[in-house]
Amino acid sequence: MVKKFVVGVIGAGRIGKLHIENLLRKVPDISLKIISDVNVDDKLKQWADERGILKLTTDSNEIFSDPEIDVVLIASSTDTHANYIQEAAKSKKHIFCEKPIDVDIDRIKKTLEIVKNEGVKLMVGFNRRFDRNFMRVHEAISSGQVGTPQIIKITSRDPAPPPIEYIKVSGGIFLDMTIHDWDMARYQAGSEVEEVYASGAVLVDPEIGKAGDIDTAVAVLKFRNGAIGIIDNTRQAVYGYDQRVEVFGSRGCVLADNEATNTVRIYTADCTNIDKIPYFFLERYVESYATELKYFFECLKNNQIPYPNGDDGLQNVLVAMAAQKSYEENRPVKISEVDK
Amino acid sequence: MVKKFVVGVIGAGRIGKLHIENLLRKVPDISLKIISDVNVDDKLKQWADERGILKLTTDSNEIFSDPEIDVVLIASSTDTHANYIQEAAKSKKHIFCEKPIDVDIDRIKKTLEIVKNEGVKLMVGFNRRFDRNFMRVHEAISSGQVGTPQIIKITSRDPAPPPIEYIKVSGGIFLDMTIHDWDMARYQAGSEVEEVYASGAVLVDPEIGKAGDIDTAVAVLKFRNGAIGIIDNTRQAVYGYDQRVEVFGSRGCVLADNEATNTVRIYTADCTNIDKIPYFFLERYVESYATELKYFFECLKNNQIPYPNGDDGLQNVLVAMAAQKSYEENRPVKISEVDK
Amino acid sequence: MVKKFVVGVIGAGRIGKLHIENLLRKVPDISLKIISDVNVDDKLKQWADERGILKLTTDSNEIFSDPEIDVVLIASSTDTHANYIQEAAKSKKHIFCEKPIDVDIDRIKKTLEIVKNEGVKLMVGFNRRFDRNFMRVHEAISSGQVGTPQIIKITSRDPAPPPIEYIKVSGGIFLDMTIHDWDMARYQAGSEVEEVYASGAVLVDPEIGKAGDIDTAVAVLKFRNGAIGIIDNTRQAVYGYDQRVEVFGSRGCVLADNEATNTVRIYTADCTNIDKIPYFFLERYVESYATELKYFFECLKNNQIPYPNGDDGLQNVLVAMAAQKSYEENRPVKISEVDK
Amino acid sequence: MVKKFVVGVIGAGRIGKLHIENLLRKVPDISLKIISDVNVDDKLKQWADERGILKLTTDSNEIFSDPEIDVVLIASSTDTHANYIQEAAKSKKHIFCEKPIDVDIDRIKKTLEIVKNEGVKLMVGFNRRFDRNFMRVHEAISSGQVGTPQIIKITSRDPAPPPIEYIKVSGGIFLDMTIHDWDMARYQAGSEVEEVYASGAVLVDPEIGKAGDIDTAVAVLKFRNGAIGIIDNTRQAVYGYDQRVEVFGSRGCVLADNEATNTVRIYTADCTNIDKIPYFFLERYVESYATELKYFFECLKNNQIPYPNGDDGLQNVLVAMAAQKSYEENRPVKISEVDK
Repeated sequence: MVKKFVVGVIGAGRIGKLHIENLLRKVPDISLKIISDVNVDDKLKQWADERGILKLTTDSNEIFSDPEIDVVLIASSTDTHANYIQEAAKSKKHIFCEKPIDVDIDRIKKTLEIVKNEGVKLMVGFNRRFDRNFMRVHEAISSGQVGTPQIIKITSRDPAPPPIEYIKVSGGIFLDMTIHDWDMARYQAGSEVEEVYASGAVLVDPEIGKAGDIDTAVAVLKFRNGAIGIIDNTRQAVYGYDQRVEVFGSRGCVLADNEATNTVRIYTADCTNIDKIPYFFLERYVESYATELKYFFECLKNNQIPYPNGDDGLQNVLVAMAAQKSYEENRPVKISEVDK
Repeated sequence: MVKKFVVGVIGAGRIGKLHIENLLRKVPDISLKIISDVNVDDKLKQWADERGILKLTTDSNEIFSDPEIDVVLIASSTDTHANYIQEAAKSKKHIFCEKPIDVDIDRIKKTLEIVKNEGVKLMVGFNRRFDRNFMRVHEAISSGQVGTPQIIKITSRDPAPPPIEYIKVSGGIFLDMTIHDWDMARYQAGSEVEEVYASGAVLVDPEIGKAGDIDTAVAVLKFRNGAIGIIDNTRQAVYGYDQRVEVFGSRGCVLADNEATNTVRIYTADCTNIDKIPYFFLERYVESYATELKYFFECLKNNQIPYPNGDDGLQNVLVAMAAQKSYEENRPVKISEVDK
Repeated sequence: MVKKFVVGVIGAGRIGKLHIENLLRKVPDISLKIISDVNVDDKLKQWADERGILKLTTDSNEIFSDPEIDVVLIASSTDTHANYIQEAAKSKKHIFCEKPIDVDIDRIKKTLEIVKNEGVKLMVGFNRRFDRNFMRVHEAISSGQVGTPQIIKITSRDPAPPPIEYIKVSGGIFLDMTIHDWDMARYQAGSEVEEVYASGAVLVDPEIGKAGDIDTAVAVLKFRNGAIGIIDNTRQAVYGYDQRVEVFGSRGCVLADNEATNTVRIYTADCTNIDKIPYFFLERYVESYATELKYFFECLKNNQIPYPNGDDGLQNVLVAMAAQKSYEENRPVKISEVDK
Repeated sequence: MVKKFVVGVIGAGRIGKLHIENLLRKVPDISLKIISDVNVDDKLKQWADERGILKLTTDSNEIFSDPEIDVVLIASSTDTHANYIQEAAKSKKHIFCEKPIDVDIDRIKKTLEIVKNEGVKLMVGFNRRFDRNFMRVHEAISSGQVGTPQIIKITSRDPAPPPIEYIKVSGGIFLDMTIHDWDMARYQAGSEVEEVYASGAVLVDPEIGKAGDIDTAVAVLKFRNGAIGIIDNTRQAVYGYDQRVEVFGSRGCVLADNEATNTVRIYTADCTNIDKIPYFFLERYVESYATELKYFFECLKNNQIPYPNGDDGLQNVLVAMAAQKSYEENRPVKISEVDK
């Protein structure tokens, strides 16, 4: 008989609900026992009820103290991640945590130490690694088809900026938005970042500048294995969510283009029309969220270490810190400068 | 409060299970009460149990006689369709039936008369109409973007032939395989077929020829509105399930290409590689099955007539009959010759 | 020292001038000695003068009787082709003749007999065989990459109909326009046509119907080797000159898409835009005209038989005749019915 | 009567011959009078003879002193450019000069001053501006279709490195190879570069490193108008000459992809194959060389200033100098630091 993992979820906001749906519909051999959220209102109750979820609570300790629960999925606000990871680890539960672990490097390190000491598994939710296209890029690299990676090139552009209020507490574009690209670049390069040069500007909305952030950014990465990374970001691509990855290697080049809304071309007297690309991350990465959860539980079942793990979470924040420093001081910054 | 349709399903084979999964996961505001199948074994019991389905039966009358049930979904073998549609209609239940209604034209007509007299709704499962690409083609036509349709061109090629035993009872390629294309051509042309010329050959497997069928076919259709249709079929495209639709009109042309497995291109010293197209209909049309069921229940909710309806089912069989006659006699055949 | 072929050209209209330009600029090791045209006016004199062409004449016999001339290029009006070919052959000169040889089958046969008896080489200008894309299709077939050809599919659509006056004397769409497609289908199938079914309609301009012709046509071909061909034509594709070829084989499928005006995509808030395809044959096939002439002289130099030859010219007219008969009688017609 | 410009060409090497062919075959209303080269051997004599070129000389003064000559085309070795430009200007002849003007900034400035004082026109041969795709990108920007340019992204990769002996005297990758990209970036941004950060590595061939150069490079540009540029180069892309340009703007994004060798796709049981992209600049940019010369003479005829002009030539070298300094000192460098 197959072992069924019993899961508790902390955080039932937009991303939490997405994970819960995937747990219920897409991940085999698990059961969802408790959902904890700081705000259990009637709307959430009804939502949970429609899905047959038995227990809702505002007290996450009900999850940690439940001996039946094997796995904690953390999708609460960023500032609570480190604490919940520590609690879960001490309760000997495996952890799936949304990115980032934290924005304070020392706190991340302490958290990872606890996870390590308690011997539980921790996976961090960099879901883009599970996009079918970027996985295929990775496969082209690991199979040797394109040789040694030399240039990793990422285009990552949002369709519209978040509200200014969000920008103010986001930690800046490099920590809030580019963090996915740091992870993607490291994943495809197969190496850690040694130095980063970041540049940027306020070209989309002056309010973003007033909030102390930028809305357009580029970064050059130097990896330990000699590869070079290039990333460009903008908070506003009016034509949709532009997400492309390219890896140039000694034996070839592999490119993942945007997903298409459909395969239709319309030829008219003026031009050929193709519909816009999918709007934003919920449309584009919907499958990758399910794929990452399935992979996580597959790893637990087979007692394998799931990736991206806690160290990936740490490295991505280190690169973001170095990028921020680089942008502020307009010079290349080594990771060792921010990782004391 | 939203009215919930109560559904009974007849037939839990491959396609029946697919519909059941969609009813459970994708279609809102319905409840699935009974599943009937001629063969309720332990495997099916477990499958139903895992999905929380309460009632399994071998007696379809339990569905027809249940006053709570509003809708019957028929996914049993083709020869039972007409009978179950009649029973369901007489029980005043709406009907979703897999294609085809039957292979006997008189029987189809009689069945449709009963449906009409009982005043229930009937939709026939030509799922390809709900493929996102072919819907987009239709939209380009109905919005006038490409003008009046003049040439409808369908490429429809299976990756591998079915077993010879299946071929023998299939009714022939025009009724078994091309039937989807007759429907697609009529859907895109926005008109009924007046005449068909069909040609074909045994090029894939001589055994198919010995079984009295062909494995490669082309057809030219003349529509009442003057448009011309061209279809080509083969039972074996070694590169995958090739499904394309093109409509040429007075103001432009709209083409739906195959779906891609991913968006990745790999450039090497020899050539550029793109992965194969999706293998077969379960991969390619997975979404369209869910979309068609959602549409069907949406129509019921809003008291609208769902399409493709019973007449579509009839017309497609008429075209198939005419095509078979055309192939056998090597001459164009009018629909009126087979619709006495 | 390299042998230089001395060439005389008959006919300096649009297509004749195109060949002359190619002879002067693109074909090595030849010299152009005389141009003959029924109408040598000041404009033509100036045009020839700017290109350093020494001799212009209205008398084609000056070409036939000039012992220095090795090769005659015939680009005069269709009704003069057969006669000029015969004259050239009798003068022991090799011949490149624009398509078609003639529209009378007996006259073509007699002409080819004279060519054969005189032992000169004759190539007919079906330039599309020299398009880089269609050559690549052919290569994919002849290298065995896609296996045995089973379905040959040609889309061939003009951007706009010719003047009605031209239509009236054109010999009909199957002889005037589809003739290129008969040739392409035979070239790619690697086999001769056995039977043709042609259908068509007047959908573009009623005046074309009044002139006794159709403007939209489809044809189904059966080849001796079992392959099936499908062709669709229209006199008016508002989006440009739509020229595609597809060959489906037992081991794969090869498709040649339209040439692009450029490789640019423009993503905007509404859709993705691509510029229109090249307008008409002068834009699309400009290179193929030069390639075919280079190939012809290469064959002469190496004493090889150039293709498409006289028999190709004959076969294409036979298929056109059969197609016309098929359209008129609405039934498949065997080539043997028109080749008595 | 149309004024015919009389042209003298200095330098008949590979690129000089290409220009001469274009002058003879593609540029209307000019006549080529003298070709000067340091090495007039029999081979060159025969080459010129076949093209009807009357005068060959080793003394460029024959060009400067010939009062009939209106235009000098300079395609000699880089170190002679500045001197010949000065001579031509003093002889009151218009000048088309291959890039770069020189590698010494003071010398460039002095040369441009002479050109200015003499009142002649000077165009520098950055031919990529005349590629049909990159012109289309520019048009999308200047028409406002994609709004204000914010990110300019250039991929520019050679298929194979030049000989080490060439590398040693090339002036380094930023001056030898990236110079085309500096020009393209400035052209598309519509603004001058203010600061550059360049990074690079030796990843292709250690011998290139020993020769004091790098073979892989990336650069980040800041333009005066706020736009950001990103360029990546490599000396060896095994799949061919990879030349792409992308401009992201406030209202959209325009991308120019590589040219295709043909439009053919081959679907097989394993994957879809597309032929390699064109090999190198002679294949890819063949048309652009003709287009730039036609444009140059069109400007002369209409008394318009041709671009890219001398200042473009200067700016591109300034950016290259700043990039080299940036790479050596691993910090962003302002153009003002190298333009004293």
